[in-house]
Amino acid sequence: MSKEITSREKDYSQWYNDLIIKGGLADYSAVRGCMVIKPHGFALWENMRDQLDRMFKETGHVNAYFPLFVPKSLFEAEEKNAEGFAKECAVVTHYRLKTDPSEKGKLMVDPEAKLEEELVIRPTSEAIIWNTYKNWIQSHRDLPLLINQWANVVRWEMRTRLFLRTAEFLWQEGHTAHATKEEAVEETVKMLNVYAEFVENFMAVPVIKGVKTPNERFAGAEDTYCIEALMQDGKALQAGTSHFLGQNFANKENQLEYVWATSWGVSTRLIGALVMAHSDDEGLILPPRLAPLQVVIVPIYKGEDQKNLIDARVHSLVAELKSMGIRVKYDDADHARPGWKFAEYELKGVPVRLAIGARDLENNVVEVARRDTREKTSVSLDGIAVYI
Amino acid sequence: MSKEITSREKDYSQWYNDLIIKGGLADYSAVRGCMVIKPHGFALWENMRDQLDRMFKETGHVNAYFPLFVPKSLFEAEEKNAEGFAKECAVVTHYRLKTDPSEKGKLMVDPEAKLEEELVIRPTSEAIIWNTYKNWIQSHRDLPLLINQWANVVRWEMRTRLFLRTAEFLWQEGHTAHATKEEAVEETVKMLNVYAEFVENFMAVPVIKGVKTPNERFAGAEDTYCIEALMQDGKALQAGTSHFLGQNFANKENQLEYVWATSWGVSTRLIGALVMAHSDDEGLILPPRLAPLQVVIVPIYKGEDQKNLIDARVHSLVAELKSMGIRVKYDDADHARPGWKFAEYELKGVPVRLAIGARDLENNVVEVARRDTREKTSVSLDGIAVYI
Repeated sequence: MSKEITSREKDYSQWYNDLIIKGGLADYSAVRGCMVIKPHGFALWENMRDQLDRMFKETGHVNAYFPLFVPKSLFEAEEKNAEGFAKECAVVTHYRLKTDPSEKGKLMVDPEAKLEEELVIRPTSEAIIWNTYKNWIQSHRDLPLLINQWANVVRWEMRTRLFLRTAEFLWQEGHTAHATKEEAVEETVKMLNVYAEFVENFMAVPVIKGVKTPNERFAGAEDTYCIEALMQDGKALQAGTSHFLGQNFANKENQLEYVWATSWGVSTRLIGALVMAHSDDEGLILPPRLAPLQVVIVPIYKGEDQKNLIDARVHSLVAELKSMGIRVKYDDADHARPGWKFAEYELKGVPVRLAIGARDLENNVVEVARRDTREKTSVSLDGIAVYI
Repeated sequence: MSKEITSREKDYSQWYNDLIIKGGLADYSAVRGCMVIKPHGFALWENMRDQLDRMFKETGHVNAYFPLFVPKSLFEAEEKNAEGFAKECAVVTHYRLKTDPSEKGKLMVDPEAKLEEELVIRPTSEAIIWNTYKNWIQSHRDLPLLINQWANVVRWEMRTRLFLRTAEFLWQEGHTAHATKEEAVEETVKMLNVYAEFVENFMAVPVIKGVKTPNERFAGAEDTYCIEALMQDGKALQAGTSHFLGQNFANKENQLEYVWATSWGVSTRLIGALVMAHSDDEGLILPPRLAPLQVVIVPIYKGEDQKNLIDARVHSLVAELKSMGIRVKYDDADHARPGWKFAEYELKGVPVRLAIGARDLENNVVEVARRDTREKTSVSLDGIAVYI
């Protein structure tokens, strides 16, 4: 299996693509620049999202959901948006298709269903959110407003890379409103630290915190803080940003001179960072705290009798591991050989593999293989759950 | 507070809107037909989504994510789609805005950025998913494919109602592929039963299961099963559907004659059903298993001394309730009177309210008010956590 992955040395970029596609994280789609996130990749994203969501809630934030569309007038009212995203936004102009009279079985845009005002697919929800906040903030008492959204956004990129840069991507965007400048700056820094903690402790990727130069930063921001994740080749990849927006949005939208704003976001790009930071030429290496599957158990046997003995012992082990909150799978499918399974789970980045044969059972041991170091150890079955 | 809610008797439809907006579940937005799901409403949706997601996973399904866009050619290749959704779909025709030379500060669609092929915003992902499955299903061994997606979809509705019918809504769509007809029919029925179990046991709403007549059913389906939720006025509201698709999709997309398909979905419409089934003229009534906040505690006091005594006792009670997994809030804000708070939490549908005053503390009791029956009882503080 490993021979199907291009080596880093040969072609780093192709190595990355091979990992994403053959590792089962994502696939190209019929839509230019958009990807399909496959079950293995989406389970990884769910684990990342759920952990981040817990950290956001622990720091006092709540979730909400705002429309996919931004009316053009609202979009252009945010000059900052206009500068930043006008050149790369998908625009809805019609709300109906009709049968094409000139070609059987074909549909065409119905010219009579032209929208009076075009709708932009959100490249960020900043404009629509602040347009909403003006109704929600009547006085100091409504502050701070600490809201986050998990959503899909679209930026029309010409050159795309799976997870790193796609036309549609999934992300979270926090948008907060505060009574004082100090509080808003504090929030900006707090969320940068939440990101750094997540990337370091859960993704196990080293992080550098920084401040963007005026040239680099989001057009609406007064200060943009970012975290860069360190890849194994020593390069840094932007992994998250946290903006202190000053009073730019508040003033424009609602004459609430006293409101200070922040925004902060991370996206499915984090998966690209995770892959590049840890993987090797054999496949993905996923950190145990985020891996969809943490332990896989592969039986090695000849004949039904051996299989039955192994099954019985493994089933109780699986139950024990599950009760400890470990995500474990017993792969006893008989259409693939153990060697093929080993390669498959190495490719997919499962952190720990247990292999157990009839002789292991007699000796009451199991072979434990770590994906990251590729070390193999023989461990007694008695304390195995705790050992893991 | 209750006087702000129109009574059911006076105007049922206005009563519903008042509950949604004043109860803090959702708000109108700047985009025609689209709503903002407010934090209270979104927390309710998260609880519903998480429970359904657990039930989907327990029945062997995994999640994935497919593109927001469907190329027009793919859309029209599904005649069934074309019949069903062509008249109500949002269409992206351009990928850029530019400065409008005729009006300062305005943007216009850049005519040079016209897409060669228009993109439809998914009204359902059926077409794009089956276009993807054809690459994923190489043989019987790849079956069954049991995939679900949580996503936003758009159907251009002319007459919208908050949660019940909006242009954009959130939903889940399961799309499964099976080797035999029997297995596909079994899946269709299984998921209908999952929906019925969820609506009855978690939403506490009675359900009628049914089969749609050929006229009513989704154009691509051979059989459509549905659940209708019973509202308090005796009317039934369609709450979920599960389709046996036969070989319609499989054959069209990939010559895999042996593949049998199903699809099944529920949406944020369930929130509309929940509201209509349980609420009264005082506000929302939310079932405890789904309520974002299950218990609220309101102190009644004069002066700091009383407040401090109550605080001390309540803090340990809150810790105890939280350790039991109960979502509880102690509302000791001093800018609102207890009566105002009572009305506010009744409006928002919090199932249990505890009120505790200095005299209660002396007597070691607390007043427990149930939102659904509006019964009040005085209960000893000693066993209160268990009582709840």
